[in-house]
Amino acid sequence: MRLATVRRGGRTRAAVGDDAGWVVLEEDDVQNLIAAPDWRERAEAVLRHPARTALGDEVFANPVPRPAKIFCCGLNYRDHILETGRDVPEFPTIFAKFADTLTGPADEILVHDTVKLDWEAELAVVVGAEVRRVDREHARLAILGYTVSNDISMRDWQQRTLQWLQGKAFDATTPIGPWIVTADELEPREGLRITCTVNDEVVQDGDTAELVFDAADLVAYVSQLTVLRPGDIILTGTPGGVALGMAEPRWLRDGDLVTTSVEGIGALRNTVRFE
Amino acid sequence: MRLATVRRGGRTRAAVGDDAGWVVLEEDDVQNLIAAPDWRERAEAVLRHPARTALGDEVFANPVPRPAKIFCCGLNYRDHILETGRDVPEFPTIFAKFADTLTGPADEILVHDTVKLDWEAELAVVVGAEVRRVDREHARLAILGYTVSNDISMRDWQQRTLQWLQGKAFDATTPIGPWIVTADELEPREGLRITCTVNDEVVQDGDTAELVFDAADLVAYVSQLTVLRPGDIILTGTPGGVALGMAEPRWLRDGDLVTTSVEGIGALRNTVRFE
Repeated sequence: MRLATVRRGGRTRAAVGDDAGWVVLEEDDVQNLIAAPDWRERAEAVLRHPARTALGDEVFANPVPRPAKIFCCGLNYRDHILETGRDVPEFPTIFAKFADTLTGPADEILVHDTVKLDWEAELAVVVGAEVRRVDREHARLAILGYTVSNDISMRDWQQRTLQWLQGKAFDATTPIGPWIVTADELEPREGLRITCTVNDEVVQDGDTAELVFDAADLVAYVSQLTVLRPGDIILTGTPGGVALGMAEPRWLRDGDLVTTSVEGIGALRNTVRFE
Repeated sequence: MRLATVRRGGRTRAAVGDDAGWVVLEEDDVQNLIAAPDWRERAEAVLRHPARTALGDEVFANPVPRPAKIFCCGLNYRDHILETGRDVPEFPTIFAKFADTLTGPADEILVHDTVKLDWEAELAVVVGAEVRRVDREHARLAILGYTVSNDISMRDWQQRTLQWLQGKAFDATTPIGPWIVTADELEPREGLRITCTVNDEVVQDGDTAELVFDAADLVAYVSQLTVLRPGDIILTGTPGGVALGMAEPRWLRDGDLVTTSVEGIGALRNTVRFE
């Protein structure tokens, strides 16, 4: 099942869908939808009827507009870690984002005061239940589903100090979506191709089977620190191929189209604009 | 003027006060109080009447229970930076916390799975207006007031990776309060004594005049990245004297009483408990 938040009539609405198309619901967004204990039964019932709506790329909004917590994992693709000469880490490197940092799957990304703008295609995990200090198995059961994200980074700001946050926290610069595929339909450990394309050039081409800490590992790890609730998000890290790693970095420029995709989910298409 | 959130009758209430005592209001907390455009006129009118209530330490809760964003500044006390042989930084080191990390000014701090628990007395800035990419002067005007905090840190978790977040994000481990003193009554640049005491031993004794980036600097800087809204919080960093800096660190132990104070505001008194 797919879960989306779509723009319709000056507001947003939750939608459920499958390969045949979409059904738009009354709720304002996916977070409101999943707040009802019986949301899954209801969504499955809706999808047993054949009526579907086709929706264009432009109507999809950030599926989860108000996560209370967003965690991001740093170096996490085994092949990329080994190619840079590092050891596979014992613990995940975790930093935070805020809800204001997110933006929609087809929105323009408007930036200012940066000359080192970079891409980071990422598989995003959406939490579906409240969890606190759980093991991997309970963590796995608390995953609502998966979506696509791009942790667009201002490397000049990121590298000003030891802590990365300020290069990762500009408002409306992390696209996410276009929808969530529920966890019963997708197993990233088995390998999903993840790519980032800038205009016509494929700059990242990875496989989620290379994740050192997978979705369940990260939910379990973060839950040791702090409670996770429905709608909270974990970005799982990016494969090799970022501009920062190039001998002569090709930073993003005004007008660049960044396409981010994860096999089995969908694609983000965001144009970069400099103020 | 002092602003507090106090526990009364199974709920919380906002309260305003001065040297003569407190007046408990109808609003649930300080964030609800300051949401009304005329809150200041109303609070001043209430304080023109002589009736006051005395309130014991134990009734004060975290004054700002739902900040959407909490930023913390790393190395920021000039004397401490110089004594460690570092240069005064060009940019503030910024990392994040979540609302769940906060706890009340007299609450027990319950921790688990750490053997390197440390203190960090900090002056906290509470934002009172929405600001986005403002200069220092506009940032200054957006400060609601100041309170006391202690960025209790799990150094073993903090040092697992390059990013400090996981040693700073355990639920209910950062006490804050006991109340906010409004910005018209306090100027940290002019020098406020800031101390941390563990049981009977003074372990930190600093002066806010030594802040490299003061409250207005930090609000202005963070507002270049992201919008700040009423109730958002910035912790301004800690002076020298943390356990981490000792040749033989004296980590916090079960039953330790940590007292954190800033001159002109008040004191936090929190007992540490290990699970």
